[in-house]
Amino acid sequence: MSELLGNEIFCGVDGGGTKTRAVICDVSGKILGTAQSGPSNPVNGFRGACLSVTQACTLALKDAGLPTQLLNELVVGAGLAGLNLAPIHKRMNTWPHPFKQLYLTTDLHIACLGAHKGGDGAVTITGTGSCGYASVGARSMFLGGHGFTIGDKASGAWIGAEAVRAVMLAQDGIGPHTELESLVASELQTKGGDILSHMVKAAPRDYARLAPLVFAAADTQDEVALSIVDDGVDYLEKLISRLLTLNPPRFSMLGGISQPLQKWLSPETVARVLAPFASPEYGAFHYALKTFTSESEEYRDQQQLG
Amino acid sequence: MSELLGNEIFCGVDGGGTKTRAVICDVSGKILGTAQSGPSNPVNGFRGACLSVTQACTLALKDAGLPTQLLNELVVGAGLAGLNLAPIHKRMNTWPHPFKQLYLTTDLHIACLGAHKGGDGAVTITGTGSCGYASVGARSMFLGGHGFTIGDKASGAWIGAEAVRAVMLAQDGIGPHTELESLVASELQTKGGDILSHMVKAAPRDYARLAPLVFAAADTQDEVALSIVDDGVDYLEKLISRLLTLNPPRFSMLGGISQPLQKWLSPETVARVLAPFASPEYGAFHYALKTFTSESEEYRDQQQLG
Repeated sequence: MSELLGNEIFCGVDGGGTKTRAVICDVSGKILGTAQSGPSNPVNGFRGACLSVTQACTLALKDAGLPTQLLNELVVGAGLAGLNLAPIHKRMNTWPHPFKQLYLTTDLHIACLGAHKGGDGAVTITGTGSCGYASVGARSMFLGGHGFTIGDKASGAWIGAEAVRAVMLAQDGIGPHTELESLVASELQTKGGDILSHMVKAAPRDYARLAPLVFAAADTQDEVALSIVDDGVDYLEKLISRLLTLNPPRFSMLGGISQPLQKWLSPETVARVLAPFASPEYGAFHYALKTFTSESEEYRDQQQLG
Repeated sequence: MSELLGNEIFCGVDGGGTKTRAVICDVSGKILGTAQSGPSNPVNGFRGACLSVTQACTLALKDAGLPTQLLNELVVGAGLAGLNLAPIHKRMNTWPHPFKQLYLTTDLHIACLGAHKGGDGAVTITGTGSCGYASVGARSMFLGGHGFTIGDKASGAWIGAEAVRAVMLAQDGIGPHTELESLVASELQTKGGDILSHMVKAAPRDYARLAPLVFAAADTQDEVALSIVDDGVDYLEKLISRLLTLNPPRFSMLGGISQPLQKWLSPETVARVLAPFASPEYGAFHYALKTFTSESEEYRDQQQLG
């Protein structure tokens, strides 16, 4: 490898709906600099996503004390939300990016690579959204990630939306009144029909902010909160069971609400959970290194054959 | 009344998320003209809503063979979606409208007035969204109408979204595969993960278009379709029960999917359903006439006292 890889600088990028993280590494995997920029989910805008990725890489170069002119020397691996959608992936591939190389994949793929040091394994990500991914040998599995409107069950946004839904049903006299109602009203500093006005333009992350309240209420045996958590956990258990059918050597749970969710999972499932080794952006570095190396080897083989 | 009301021309307006309907009537309730324009739910844009209302009234004047300069002579009653939200109602009230008078209320209120000839009664509306309303004497009740994101259960959009959700779960091996899956794929002319790309920017009405498939599949005892319909109908029964606690003399079911839903309601509930007398926009005429008359009487009383 050393004869192929000289002074290349690698950049791993993790791009999501709220922020983009970048890490600059040398070929040995040593971290030289890190940075963060705005959202880069191309579903919400192709140009904005490209801008955020470029910005994160530029800022990471600066953080590494390197000149930003090195941007066009960077070998970038980027895992972006939304790239599981074929037309979005295709569109992103048309980007005339400023780097030496850009290898695109999904945010889930790099999260899994990061969690398992670039090796085989499975992950769930339960943050604002929810999804699962496993990669074992040549086989991979991508579950969930269907978005707030029709999926993302057990995610922070789903849990928060279920809470608001339950509060509205209680207000209508159709669902039970529980402590969760006043918790939500107090968090939103509003009550009754006002909640609806308050949430009329709410984004998934606004709902996700309510998830901690639901976990807190479930801890006090609040009937409605328990039913929401149980429903979400039931889905998550099924999703994890499916991932484990690939027999991944390691399994990690990532994302902002993975900790509170674990309390409600079966002991058998919890026993399988291992701490992640590294961040998704570091997984993106692994991906860039691996892809660049195999491309370089292919090139060398072609040269030798020729 | 005749001494107060002379040659006034009334216009009833029903404004929703997809279209706006207007009806021009004389004081006796005789329909002189009708028209339709674009969406006027002010939640989706204040200026657009005002534009659609003005346009519908202008076109209805034309349809009545009346000069459009009469716009500023019109006594308009308008029931608009979204006016159940206090800040939206407040904002709409600031509109420097071109009419002689504009009386604003909710779309539900005018639907109820239309269905029951301006008298007491209750209605459910299950179209793209879902909600219930009852007005009996001085008491009224407004249930549901919480919007696609956190409510509108049993609506066309909710039923369609549940179908897509179920198809995605089946694709992930987490939910059962049934005939509904191929029905949805065939309707969307796509399948598998493509459904997600297809629906990534879908609006509630795009989901609502799938509702007839779900009813059709439920008719053939499709397990998933039955479970969706049962879940929606369970909610609708509870909502109707609450409305009936006000003892409305009449109850009607309105909206695009009220017919197929009735098949699944309990015989006791169906026995209460009466056909609506008139359209929501005609209900808005009733509202305009009633409000204008009582204002005129108040004015006369004040003049006489003075």
